[in-house]
Amino acid sequence: MKLQFWFEFASTYSYPAVMRAEKLAEGRGVEIEWKPFLLGPLFHAQQGMKDSPFNVVPIKGSYMWRDIERTCEKYSLPFRRPQRFPQNGLMAARITLSLPQAERGNFVKAVYQANFIHDRDISDPQILHAAARRAGLDPLETLSAMTSETVKNELREETARAADIGIFGAPSFVTEDGEMFWGNDRLEDALDWAVRGTLRPNTQN
Amino acid sequence: MKLQFWFEFASTYSYPAVMRAEKLAEGRGVEIEWKPFLLGPLFHAQQGMKDSPFNVVPIKGSYMWRDIERTCEKYSLPFRRPQRFPQNGLMAARITLSLPQAERGNFVKAVYQANFIHDRDISDPQILHAAARRAGLDPLETLSAMTSETVKNELREETARAADIGIFGAPSFVTEDGEMFWGNDRLEDALDWAVRGTLRPNTQN
Repeated sequence: MKLQFWFEFASTYSYPAVMRAEKLAEGRGVEIEWKPFLLGPLFHAQQGMKDSPFNVVPIKGSYMWRDIERTCEKYSLPFRRPQRFPQNGLMAARITLSLPQAERGNFVKAVYQANFIHDRDISDPQILHAAARRAGLDPLETLSAMTSETVKNELREETARAADIGIFGAPSFVTEDGEMFWGNDRLEDALDWAVRGTLRPNTQN
Repeated sequence: MKLQFWFEFASTYSYPAVMRAEKLAEGRGVEIEWKPFLLGPLFHAQQGMKDSPFNVVPIKGSYMWRDIERTCEKYSLPFRRPQRFPQNGLMAARITLSLPQAERGNFVKAVYQANFIHDRDISDPQILHAAARRAGLDPLETLSAMTSETVKNELREETARAADIGIFGAPSFVTEDGEMFWGNDRLEDALDWAVRGTLRPNTQN
């Protein structure tokens, strides 16, 4: 079974989901398909927003920063609130798209760690270079995707596809039978659905 | 230990939380404090919205209706999508506020069931009359709160208090040490925090 994991590098709640997904998926025999996309164009097209909703609506932002801190503590994940929010994940998304699925997970995790643990600028090629190296990739080869016209187009197409599926936030999970789940707190549900095609308890029916 | 449970009668995700809260709280030795408020004024003041965000942003609405259906199935709770959304919960909120805490739970549940199982108009005094009766209350005495100036003012004050706490959605849970959690999917976390003052796993530290 496969589960599509749609994420945006700037997204706070994508961080714990990215760090947790592979182990949970493995335990259930599910394969994660990493699907980077850009949330900015969707926020703008769907809600007329030119910034993160957490900045547009400060009361939601205040809650989110406290909630993500508690959430990471719950999962024993290190977390430091980054100075810049949201960060520009365009280059990281392009690089991810250029990699085969099997190589994406480690790079994705390294970039999220740079953003949400080490407070680094993830649009900076030096930081992406270090993330590629940490993921066991050839950094120079990997970074060439940043300016590839093919990859640029592919990212535009993937972002359009996200909108077509009904995605409006990140992380979002899509099962093979087309069920969509939104949020780190739906990761377990999405994986269960990927395996069983329902969330209904076994004792029922 | 006590946990404040802030809810709005129109709110979809409040329904499963309302139906689940007492049993989960009892199992942890926590007492639920039912706190009705009006979300409409908060949506307007905080986000400039004159309708539910699920109507203002249709793509979020589509997702929510599917997600609430799945969520209720997961908890074995009956659910039928109501014709009217959002409903007007003003009278139900006033009635709830006029009741002592010990009598609130059953009335609150009866109103949510009228809305999200039986698709009844919860602003209709006949429906509220039936809900009061089902909750074991004296219906006529109970319904007199609908026009009480004291209760009207109290509801305005409670709604202002919700905004002061930082509430922007429902259900929201507030612990005695002032920690706020938003959403049915945070109910267990909120209860755990009410008991232990942390979400950190026992094995960590």
